[in-house]
Amino acid sequence: MSVHDLTSIQDISNSNLQQRLLEKINNKTKPVGSLGRLEALAVQLGLILGNETPRLHAPQMVVCAGDHGLVQHGVSAYPSDVTWQMVENFLSGGAAVSVLARQHGIGLTVVDCGVKHDFAPRAGLQIRKVAYGTADSLEHAAMSEVQCLQAIQHGRDLLAALEGNVVLLGEMGIGNTSAASLLMARLSGIDIAACTGAGTGLDHAAIGRKTDVLRAVLAKHVNATEPLEVLAAMGGFEIATLVGVVLQAALERRVIVVDGFITSAAVLVATRMAPLVRQRCVYAHCSGERGHRGMLEMLQAQAILDLGLRLGEGSGAALVWPLLQSASLLMCDMASFEGAGVSRSES
Amino acid sequence: MSVHDLTSIQDISNSNLQQRLLEKINNKTKPVGSLGRLEALAVQLGLILGNETPRLHAPQMVVCAGDHGLVQHGVSAYPSDVTWQMVENFLSGGAAVSVLARQHGIGLTVVDCGVKHDFAPRAGLQIRKVAYGTADSLEHAAMSEVQCLQAIQHGRDLLAALEGNVVLLGEMGIGNTSAASLLMARLSGIDIAACTGAGTGLDHAAIGRKTDVLRAVLAKHVNATEPLEVLAAMGGFEIATLVGVVLQAALERRVIVVDGFITSAAVLVATRMAPLVRQRCVYAHCSGERGHRGMLEMLQAQAILDLGLRLGEGSGAALVWPLLQSASLLMCDMASFEGAGVSRSES
Repeated sequence: MSVHDLTSIQDISNSNLQQRLLEKINNKTKPVGSLGRLEALAVQLGLILGNETPRLHAPQMVVCAGDHGLVQHGVSAYPSDVTWQMVENFLSGGAAVSVLARQHGIGLTVVDCGVKHDFAPRAGLQIRKVAYGTADSLEHAAMSEVQCLQAIQHGRDLLAALEGNVVLLGEMGIGNTSAASLLMARLSGIDIAACTGAGTGLDHAAIGRKTDVLRAVLAKHVNATEPLEVLAAMGGFEIATLVGVVLQAALERRVIVVDGFITSAAVLVATRMAPLVRQRCVYAHCSGERGHRGMLEMLQAQAILDLGLRLGEGSGAALVWPLLQSASLLMCDMASFEGAGVSRSES
Repeated sequence: MSVHDLTSIQDISNSNLQQRLLEKINNKTKPVGSLGRLEALAVQLGLILGNETPRLHAPQMVVCAGDHGLVQHGVSAYPSDVTWQMVENFLSGGAAVSVLARQHGIGLTVVDCGVKHDFAPRAGLQIRKVAYGTADSLEHAAMSEVQCLQAIQHGRDLLAALEGNVVLLGEMGIGNTSAASLLMARLSGIDIAACTGAGTGLDHAAIGRKTDVLRAVLAKHVNATEPLEVLAAMGGFEIATLVGVVLQAALERRVIVVDGFITSAAVLVATRMAPLVRQRCVYAHCSGERGHRGMLEMLQAQAILDLGLRLGEGSGAALVWPLLQSASLLMCDMASFEGAGVSRSES
């Protein structure tokens, strides 16, 4: 990751363009502000794409998958095998994210970032495997610095090769709520208990045991404080790859649609490396996973949906996609008062 | 409105089918409950359509428009002419609801229920005019009982002629937040001040004046207490027509997608006439209009979106449509654990 690269992420704030976008949306045939959050969203899309007619095209869902050495300590309700089984499910079209991507015509790319399994190559699957799962972070760094940089580069390369101006972030990895909780706790200073939740469905006692394991992991890596160090010590290959996807998308001024707890952790790391990333991010939903609300606060983010989703995969990002498309179409295609011959407010 | 008709609205609660729908969604390849609110929505769709594969087809947006005699007392920020001007805008494709219906392939029917204007006939417009606007409810009943029943019948007839199994409710009528506030106050007993908001954009002082006018209207019609009486005394032609749309949709077991404050008032009247209507209703969003949150509580409804929308037209219903479609597709098309060969939770 060269420093040169990250400093070339542009500041897209532009008070002139913002003013024009606000005037445009205020002249639409509706009371001022009556489209609520969609109005701010439409303005943000204009700023990201750098024009007053922000049309979205060829949205791409990137689902990054990886396994986690830490799962041997019982931090998940499901066995590691579910990671590769779900990758197969994504590819055969039966998973939630597959159904939703199909519904909306979103391109679906599944990435083996470090799954403990050998996949047969096929359309829609990219093999960018750094290793067969991370090391156990209770004993070692989850990955070496070289591996971490490799995963980030994979994310950058694969994003750069995708068409479109919107990327939707997805993930799969048994054990990855643990990695996300660890990243959140170390980068925020919030106690690990407030960052740790049920994941795929732990009960209260199991969450307590998970929290104890994670607290020990944090103690083991007490010296890891810089974003890249923290990511290497406690992250997952799928999260590191997503960091690369996010950084490259920011460089290219794509709209970045953040899903739930795991993808938010990747965005958190990326914003610590390059704060301007935040300008490009749209937060799909507030997850039912404990910790996500706090994570969103750290990111100064306001999620669009609040439906108690806690599936991951990118399912929340796919669900919010039509609302983004609506914001874009309302900005681009709605009539103005003058154009439609509609009288203005008397007040 | 014959009593026979309304008693033939079926009770669609069915513990047997509900159990099968719950088992089906719980066997999908995801942790139990991880799709949050969408799971309950998918089960509701199954109960409404009466099967385990609730596919939605040919969704129909019905935008009912009418004018209000009460506007001469300054209860709206816009002149009455905006009603017909916006009808023209709906039909020419420039309004928010036009843009959103086009985005999602939702059929759009605009209904002149009682607009103070003569429209040239054309595709997409239905003329079901009862009168050129309601009477001033500060002086008279807004409509006679005959007119009220006529408007309801119009709604029933036009809905019956539309294809599909989902109806989305929309409305347009300068002054109709006043009518909705009056219906809410009289049918709930809640003080009119808590039912009255900014509508299209009144300031604080103007809301106070609007509230005073509405309080006087309630006093004028102190004897109107039955749903039909209340509707005739203080409603609008577009609201009465929507009551008919809702009742007919319930009779036909269609999914009813409720938009904001005005359409919720129509549903409130309909549920007072036939409580089982409520089983078919999906509430798109909680509006920024004061009173809507309380109205949703009266309806024991939980809205899906909370985006500060306060435009009406059916715009919120159109925005939530893809989420309903998602709930349906997840129920119908997602793989089961067995079908996809995915391991179950170890807990």
